[in-house]
Amino acid sequence: MKKADIGLVGLAVMGENLVMNMESKGFTVAVYNRTTEKVANFVEGRAKGRNIIGAYSLGELVDSLKKPRKIMMMVKAGQAVDSLIDQLLPYLEDGDILIDGGNSHFPDTIRRTAYVESKGLLYIGTGVSGGEEGALKGPSMMPGGSPAAWPYVRSIFQAICAKVEDGSPCCDWVGENGAGHFVKMVHNGIEYGDMQLICEAYQLMRDGLGLTSAEMHDVFSSWNETELDSYLIEITRDILGYQDEKGETVVERILDTAGQKGTGKWTGIAALDEGVPLTLIGEAVFARCLSAMKDERVAASKVFPHSVPAFTGDKKAFIESIRKALYASKIISYAQGYTLMRTAAKTYGWNLNYGGIALMWRGGCIIRSVFLGKIKEAYDKNPELENLLLDEYFAQSIKGLVPAWREVAAYAVSTGIPMPAFTAALSYFDGYTSENLPANLLQAQRDYFGAHTYERTDAPRGQFFHTNWTGHGGNTTANTYQV
Amino acid sequence: MKKADIGLVGLAVMGENLVMNMESKGFTVAVYNRTTEKVANFVEGRAKGRNIIGAYSLGELVDSLKKPRKIMMMVKAGQAVDSLIDQLLPYLEDGDILIDGGNSHFPDTIRRTAYVESKGLLYIGTGVSGGEEGALKGPSMMPGGSPAAWPYVRSIFQAICAKVEDGSPCCDWVGENGAGHFVKMVHNGIEYGDMQLICEAYQLMRDGLGLTSAEMHDVFSSWNETELDSYLIEITRDILGYQDEKGETVVERILDTAGQKGTGKWTGIAALDEGVPLTLIGEAVFARCLSAMKDERVAASKVFPHSVPAFTGDKKAFIESIRKALYASKIISYAQGYTLMRTAAKTYGWNLNYGGIALMWRGGCIIRSVFLGKIKEAYDKNPELENLLLDEYFAQSIKGLVPAWREVAAYAVSTGIPMPAFTAALSYFDGYTSENLPANLLQAQRDYFGAHTYERTDAPRGQFFHTNWTGHGGNTTANTYQV
Repeated sequence: MKKADIGLVGLAVMGENLVMNMESKGFTVAVYNRTTEKVANFVEGRAKGRNIIGAYSLGELVDSLKKPRKIMMMVKAGQAVDSLIDQLLPYLEDGDILIDGGNSHFPDTIRRTAYVESKGLLYIGTGVSGGEEGALKGPSMMPGGSPAAWPYVRSIFQAICAKVEDGSPCCDWVGENGAGHFVKMVHNGIEYGDMQLICEAYQLMRDGLGLTSAEMHDVFSSWNETELDSYLIEITRDILGYQDEKGETVVERILDTAGQKGTGKWTGIAALDEGVPLTLIGEAVFARCLSAMKDERVAASKVFPHSVPAFTGDKKAFIESIRKALYASKIISYAQGYTLMRTAAKTYGWNLNYGGIALMWRGGCIIRSVFLGKIKEAYDKNPELENLLLDEYFAQSIKGLVPAWREVAAYAVSTGIPMPAFTAALSYFDGYTSENLPANLLQAQRDYFGAHTYERTDAPRGQFFHTNWTGHGGNTTANTYQV
Repeated sequence: MKKADIGLVGLAVMGENLVMNMESKGFTVAVYNRTTEKVANFVEGRAKGRNIIGAYSLGELVDSLKKPRKIMMMVKAGQAVDSLIDQLLPYLEDGDILIDGGNSHFPDTIRRTAYVESKGLLYIGTGVSGGEEGALKGPSMMPGGSPAAWPYVRSIFQAICAKVEDGSPCCDWVGENGAGHFVKMVHNGIEYGDMQLICEAYQLMRDGLGLTSAEMHDVFSSWNETELDSYLIEITRDILGYQDEKGETVVERILDTAGQKGTGKWTGIAALDEGVPLTLIGEAVFARCLSAMKDERVAASKVFPHSVPAFTGDKKAFIESIRKALYASKIISYAQGYTLMRTAAKTYGWNLNYGGIALMWRGGCIIRSVFLGKIKEAYDKNPELENLLLDEYFAQSIKGLVPAWREVAAYAVSTGIPMPAFTAALSYFDGYTSENLPANLLQAQRDYFGAHTYERTDAPRGQFFHTNWTGHGGNTTANTYQV
């Protein structure tokens, strides 16, 4: 029997679709699932007549593979990955490659890479984005791990992944150990941000301007012809236009309580750990948490009854302002996300290719957009770009968007429509472009109550001062706080 | 020689001052420091003639203590605590009590409580707030750990801690294992929030209204006679009025780059872990990170030159609006912080007394304020209060503050003065009091690209639906995503 090019464990929707995708590109795939009925159902069903080999044990799976063996694990992130690795190791030999295609947390992937390498094998942790549709037709893939593994999987990954217009694959080597899963995590955080921004624009139009779903369908349709052209705007357009068999617009019947699977949260934690102000994604994660508090919100809405005043201005012009505010906020979100990647790359010693990352996200994944092409250009022009806002194209863009952005934010805070991400983005922009923030007062406070010391504007950086503000606190500073 | 009531390791400013405080209340204290010159300097200096025993080794320290021995560790949070515990254990016996008075991360305290208890000893992790001044004259103390230890240290802790007007001590038992350090962590997060809010008010007056430090000194002076009456407003008043020997206002010479020691970050991470929208403290932490990017900000300010237009309205009236916006935002920050404690208490099985916590914070600590007395009243009235905003006093207060709050936020976003915490607080208020958020669209998006399913407004909660939005994605939902 013909040996398979690659094996895959875990036949849920993502796993099944990846297998179908690989097979369609000419690869023979062996598949295994813990609940083996799924293997039988798959090979007798969707996989029938294709170069897909059903395996009913891990040993059988391993035996069906060409060497060095490549096994892709599509199982639930967490303990399941560790135990699957330990179940597989006894069957494998030096140079075999284990691939985790789930949404693993990057510190786990750092640890697993070291562990699997210590057994003489190679490891890849790869982000896979694009949902079920992407898995089938071409996802964005962000592999990191053991660099020696990349030449063996490259042809498969770059065959099945999405391609941009010129045929470039939306998959390239990201970096060592956890780099691939880190970049995928930031992708997901940005996805949280993009979705929240769209929701805020939707709420402004729904609750502020009183537009119907059909009208908003048309708005998103036209926005998709602008700089906002992207998958998420496109599906929003489709969702707003989608009616069920009874002719009801489904989105209007959906409960407004969002779930979150953890990668957005991880992005926020990574930003806090790295000391990078990732305010927009932070607000997007918290907005989901707030949405989940439905019963409390309903109760609170009765204590604080509130209705948005009827809009009296030029609706069409204001819709264009909302579009500009959304675009400006989106630039901020990506600027923050890229700053996080740059900072983490220093911490973890990854040599990230920022333009390459934009290209990987340019197609296949949930955040794919024309916009990412512009980001690629910015990093191609200057691979060391400190902040996306400082790129000439984006700087010019933002300058043109600022008045509308301020108008929309002022409208929202005045009328009581919550716009946490729009306003967080604007605060960041205003803070980032401020030579002087009020942190001089904050440093004075910290020195006052905790003797934390401060630097001065009229003394070299790195020289620290302490003032005995009260005249009776003593001259001991907190720097001496040690055993 | 007389045995000491308690021992203390770590003679930095906090440790020294706590020792002086304990001795002044009639306790004999034995002290040790790794660099033993500090012991000698202390006992020959500030401690001379007092009931303070210098120890030059851990064995000597332990020998000088009454049984059960009580040793307070005032060393740098982290590895230093673990190694000190391991150095002390061989000298100690069953029932002795180790007390960590540093800013330890609560998961470490959970772990250490179990470890020390497994050796037959008792453990306390206590928050101590109030800075050097508080340590000397009466800090706020938040002890948690082994409940059996509390009766032995209670008399010392409640003697040295701050007292409110009626003499109630600002120290009581918080809860098991890490509860004390958790509550101290939230205290510090709230401190970050309070400081950021004051800084934003300061920036509005400085950059928006063009007030001098002397004028703002007067403003904070008058604010301290209102509901804002608090330690941080008071020291802000003093800082704005403080001039050095050359007659220069010191705060104006301080560099606007704030440090952060980690507890604010931990609070943000805990909120993300618990899924609690703690947006204001999150913004406060990120604002410090942004302030630290001084060089980038200076460069960005040249790319985006920007000046705040001269204020043309009634300055005095606007200052009062800023005060109201600050007060409203502060209520939100505490509402969020208390929600985090309530949620974590469920996660970790702590039986927290929320009114008692407000009382502990009412005096001695950095966030002490008259306001906390109102929070105590709210929880005394309803210990199960779901959100501070739903308490009648705070609900009425907020209602009166909302118009000014919106006015100030609209001014800030219109003129380009960054107000991340003011606007995050307002977004939270508007979101929390909204029956309908736009998360119905977000759920539709998640179901569209990831088959995540959704609930409906016209079906019971807990019933999940999936729409085949594209007509060709298949009916497999993400719920089946497993091995």
